[in-house]
Amino acid sequence: MQKDKSSLRCLALLALLSSTFLVADLGADEGMWLFNQIPFETLREKHQFVPDPGWAEHLLRACVRLSSGGSGSFVSPEGLILTNHHVGSDALQKLSTPEKNLLAEGFLADARERELKCQDLEILSLVEIVDVTARVNGAVPQGADPAAAGKARREAMAVIEKESKDATGGKSEVVTLYQGGQYHLYRYKRYDDVRLVMAPETDIAFFGGDVDNFEYPRHDLDICLFRVYEGGKPARVEHYLRWSQSGAADGELVFVTGHPASTKRLNTVDHFRFLRDVEYPSMLAMLARKEITLQQYSIRGLEEERRARDELFGVQNSRKARRGVLAGLLDPAILLEKSRTEAEIRAKVVANPQFGATLEDWERIANARRAFVGFYDEYQFLENGRAFWSSLFGTARTLVRLGDEREKPNAERLPGYRESDMESLEQQLYSTAPIYADLEKVMLSDSLTSFATALGAEHPLVRMVLAGRSPIDRAANLVDGTKLLDVEARREVAKGGRKAIAASADPMIVLARAVDPYAREARRKYEDLVQGVEREAYGRIANALFKIRGTAVYPDATYTLRLAFGKVAGYVEGGQNVAPFTTLGGAFEKHEKHRGMPPFQLPKSWLDAREKLDLSTPFNFVATVDIVGGNSGSPVTNRKGEFVGIIFDGNIQSLVWDISYTEEAARCVAVASPSILEALRKIYGAAAVVEEILKASRG
Amino acid sequence: MQKDKSSLRCLALLALLSSTFLVADLGADEGMWLFNQIPFETLREKHQFVPDPGWAEHLLRACVRLSSGGSGSFVSPEGLILTNHHVGSDALQKLSTPEKNLLAEGFLADARERELKCQDLEILSLVEIVDVTARVNGAVPQGADPAAAGKARREAMAVIEKESKDATGGKSEVVTLYQGGQYHLYRYKRYDDVRLVMAPETDIAFFGGDVDNFEYPRHDLDICLFRVYEGGKPARVEHYLRWSQSGAADGELVFVTGHPASTKRLNTVDHFRFLRDVEYPSMLAMLARKEITLQQYSIRGLEEERRARDELFGVQNSRKARRGVLAGLLDPAILLEKSRTEAEIRAKVVANPQFGATLEDWERIANARRAFVGFYDEYQFLENGRAFWSSLFGTARTLVRLGDEREKPNAERLPGYRESDMESLEQQLYSTAPIYADLEKVMLSDSLTSFATALGAEHPLVRMVLAGRSPIDRAANLVDGTKLLDVEARREVAKGGRKAIAASADPMIVLARAVDPYAREARRKYEDLVQGVEREAYGRIANALFKIRGTAVYPDATYTLRLAFGKVAGYVEGGQNVAPFTTLGGAFEKHEKHRGMPPFQLPKSWLDAREKLDLSTPFNFVATVDIVGGNSGSPVTNRKGEFVGIIFDGNIQSLVWDISYTEEAARCVAVASPSILEALRKIYGAAAVVEEILKASRG
Repeated sequence: MQKDKSSLRCLALLALLSSTFLVADLGADEGMWLFNQIPFETLREKHQFVPDPGWAEHLLRACVRLSSGGSGSFVSPEGLILTNHHVGSDALQKLSTPEKNLLAEGFLADARERELKCQDLEILSLVEIVDVTARVNGAVPQGADPAAAGKARREAMAVIEKESKDATGGKSEVVTLYQGGQYHLYRYKRYDDVRLVMAPETDIAFFGGDVDNFEYPRHDLDICLFRVYEGGKPARVEHYLRWSQSGAADGELVFVTGHPASTKRLNTVDHFRFLRDVEYPSMLAMLARKEITLQQYSIRGLEEERRARDELFGVQNSRKARRGVLAGLLDPAILLEKSRTEAEIRAKVVANPQFGATLEDWERIANARRAFVGFYDEYQFLENGRAFWSSLFGTARTLVRLGDEREKPNAERLPGYRESDMESLEQQLYSTAPIYADLEKVMLSDSLTSFATALGAEHPLVRMVLAGRSPIDRAANLVDGTKLLDVEARREVAKGGRKAIAASADPMIVLARAVDPYAREARRKYEDLVQGVEREAYGRIANALFKIRGTAVYPDATYTLRLAFGKVAGYVEGGQNVAPFTTLGGAFEKHEKHRGMPPFQLPKSWLDAREKLDLSTPFNFVATVDIVGGNSGSPVTNRKGEFVGIIFDGNIQSLVWDISYTEEAARCVAVASPSILEALRKIYGAAAVVEEILKASRG
Repeated sequence: MQKDKSSLRCLALLALLSSTFLVADLGADEGMWLFNQIPFETLREKHQFVPDPGWAEHLLRACVRLSSGGSGSFVSPEGLILTNHHVGSDALQKLSTPEKNLLAEGFLADARERELKCQDLEILSLVEIVDVTARVNGAVPQGADPAAAGKARREAMAVIEKESKDATGGKSEVVTLYQGGQYHLYRYKRYDDVRLVMAPETDIAFFGGDVDNFEYPRHDLDICLFRVYEGGKPARVEHYLRWSQSGAADGELVFVTGHPASTKRLNTVDHFRFLRDVEYPSMLAMLARKEITLQQYSIRGLEEERRARDELFGVQNSRKARRGVLAGLLDPAILLEKSRTEAEIRAKVVANPQFGATLEDWERIANARRAFVGFYDEYQFLENGRAFWSSLFGTARTLVRLGDEREKPNAERLPGYRESDMESLEQQLYSTAPIYADLEKVMLSDSLTSFATALGAEHPLVRMVLAGRSPIDRAANLVDGTKLLDVEARREVAKGGRKAIAASADPMIVLARAVDPYAREARRKYEDLVQGVEREAYGRIANALFKIRGTAVYPDATYTLRLAFGKVAGYVEGGQNVAPFTTLGGAFEKHEKHRGMPPFQLPKSWLDAREKLDLSTPFNFVATVDIVGGNSGSPVTNRKGEFVGIIFDGNIQSLVWDISYTEEAARCVAVASPSILEALRKIYGAAAVVEEILKASRG
């Protein structure tokens, strides 16, 4: 293993030094490929893999996206879906009560009819991808400035989505790829009746907690099983993954099919500087504040801890991930490599006017980012809602915007409020998931404080929002005064439309209404001065890039389905070999080493089952496959398309993958298929689920 | 009790509304009085208390200040000092090893010769106060601009300090009072041989942890006993407090003698706005970051948790306190009151030119703060060292500055580097307290990251500091490369003076050397453009205030000895009466209610001793006495000058006392004297200590 990796490292180094270093290092397993642009040639040349016809289509159809933010896959024809525990945790949190804490205790439906219906979980299964670039760009009138062009494109996208929805009934989204280089229509089948089948205890799903998060070796059973229903019955699905009982082997080629949420690898260097000096510092300051606030709330008692659990996990997870990215952005070596690559692309662009880009495109992006700095805080606080850390405010804003947007022609509406979005919007808006007034107050007063200190307490917008009160008083006044905790009250307001909104005296609605013009103005500035300009400039750069690199360019991640591949492989850290696989036995060793102190406390179910388990069963493993956040829950498959594991993390070295792929020690982390079956069988007694999976795999 | 408080509230309200509301509400127990300006009249009129001659002098001499940041008092003629556990914790941390964790396990010297010598704890006992205002102001040449005037004053202060030190041998400090209205010389006796006598376990000293910090009711034995030595023997002291075995009673008049560190009550409204919009947000962002970083380090393992314990406590304590102050600053009612008071003072100033102040003085302060915003980050990061969160960097800077400053005439040196400071400086510089390289790296890389993101990674100063590395690499490079972990290496460099510094290749010294000119420039700008201007303007406003208010003005806290007084009194919170006293039994009830889960886990020593204890013994109590941070460890005494308790906290309502005293529900929190004796006797078997205290009280 070591030898292979050393030579790969040499290759990468050579490539870096070579003046022709323009394309992604093909020696490395880099790439989050579009399903309609799979690099079959690379697969054949590098991995001697020529898939059967239908192989890609099958993977595409077997994979799903969850509205709680993550990926999953069908593992039986009866709509059984496997995802991560930390992807399902939003649903687990919402289904929990003070008496029954599903996150802590886990869950197993002992019969189909006792599978628990989730309040607002939506699952999308991709059906089709259509390239609509020409149509979107064709909608832009000649000579339009970037703002007008942006508007024309947004309207064209809305029209395409509506047509697709009307024609097929499926959820339809036009996705902007290559920062504006291409536009593809994604058509999904939508499931809104999703039921919880099985979840282990958080203690083993997130064994090692925040300490081990983004670390390796790991011992986590980060899984959760849902089932989608149609017409009150388990949905019948054609495409599902067959289960490999032996799992993957060291060195084996594996594939990951999932929804990486966001990468910034194709950014210009000036855009990276913006991320480094403005966006990440701002985001990390917010996350640190939120983390402390949620911790302070959580330590009040066990019930408070339960209420804040999922939100706190999300904040901590983001904080750790983004600290890693910022460290990468502050590493001069990484930016130096980006600068070199950029310099060479710029040289090619200058030498080849026919590529259609000019150096001004880079300058336009730099200027757009510079302009953004001027209203960054207002945009984040008002339009992105950073001032209003409260689900009740979110509900109020949705109602206010729904009232306004519904009166507009579909193509002119804000994204999220178009006809094709209504089912999803209503599922969220009328969710019966619990909202805790005490937690809302704590969060809202924290974010109002942050808003007041960022803009200055005497800023007119701050004065308007605080209405003469301190942030603490104002949050209490809003949360105590609103009726939006009640789902029926929400329906009532929505039904009344714009008039009901205008007449409402509900303080949260009054606030959302008052803020909205300013939020929309910040959004308009962003769309016109930043997004519009960048889409055009990045679009031209991307087109030049296609001409320079051929097909060896994949777009940055967009929370849409991608295919990635690589090898199961250990790595070296601090001079030590890190083996690719851990075992179930290792979890018990770790528990003992830490004397069962949290977060290294195995649940009772595991301690009780120890004797029955095959402790040599592979538990977690690492591979070179290119993933980022959003890939959580993605299936790992082998050449035969069999399920060999499920992605749940990357190691600490992989955090820079947001901006730059490296293969030396960065790895994705997965739960191995054999350990899942072993646990379901011997720890959780989930015989029916195991039988369903195995039967599907035989069938 | 309730009735009294309601009427007090009415009085305060009337005063607020009255147009003559100019002076501190004499109905309230507000005031941190100078020992040379004690309001004897108020004591007589309001509390019918006329102290014996020598009463104040005795209190003054019995009280001490600790270099770790807090107060204490002598409780026996043999140099026995009582302070808080959280004031002693710095020493406890430094005396601990991986094998013997004094913070966790507590400590009791079973004989004098086994009292543990602290590495670098210094204790100061005040001897004398001399008003030197005329001399300091007299040193300013006529017509000098604020910068030149500031310089002249600083030099005059240095001369006075040196004269005093030469004449008396004691540590001498000229203190700036009323933000520049007066200058007083404080002469101290200094003890540098301090030994640990007794400390309880953190679990009971800080029972309730961060959850209960700044809350009430409390059940904390937040005490620690040290002894000062002279010539290798326990120091003989004349003034010490006699112990009241019965403690204080509800409603009783009590006194607090201690060192409140810093208040901002006399600030102008524009200065408050600066605190609200600039200083506190900046500080809180830093604290949140530090807290997360230390938590992340601590969760690596038990040894890491031990290493970071005291630093983490300090950060969490500051964060909670400062969040409280910021909430006050964001409360429009508080700033409205400040504005009203200020408007009336300004009106009097305009009407009475002979008072010597003008409206321009307020404008000058506002302008100075506005100017400060322009270089606030550079000042904080470079001069205040926020970029260099590392004790090794602190050592390097001290060495660099020592080399430079020693070559200057004493009067021109930086504060801290004058002849009168050398003993304290060397005690710190050559401390053998452990420094953990791994923790240093974590802290330093965190602060370097914050520096890089605040100024931008391409700022010339950031580039100079990072020297082409990422913050993580640079921190490792500095900590691994420096020899300053070794005390002998420090002595060597110090001995070589400026030449050795200039020649040093030690990376930490090289960095401190490179940064110093920029840090000094930021300091100069602060002194000339902010401090110099404000000293003059505040000085004139203060003098006008004396003329308006007579003697009813006390200066803001300056970490020098003050006398405060008030009544033992409960309060109402959320409609519930909060009783002034808790009992030892309450601690056991709390432990049971929380099922012994940290931070509500009583130590084994307490659980074992339960049967022996008188559970009705008063444990903690609250009073209206005006305190802030720095008062920790201050003795609470009764009319007879007897020790009835020790301050260790304020409740959450008291956090705004930094900017404004309110009496309605804000309270200081103390450990009651009876519980200390009960615990020493029956839980810790500290018979000799108890006997020493009781003998001293009889004697």
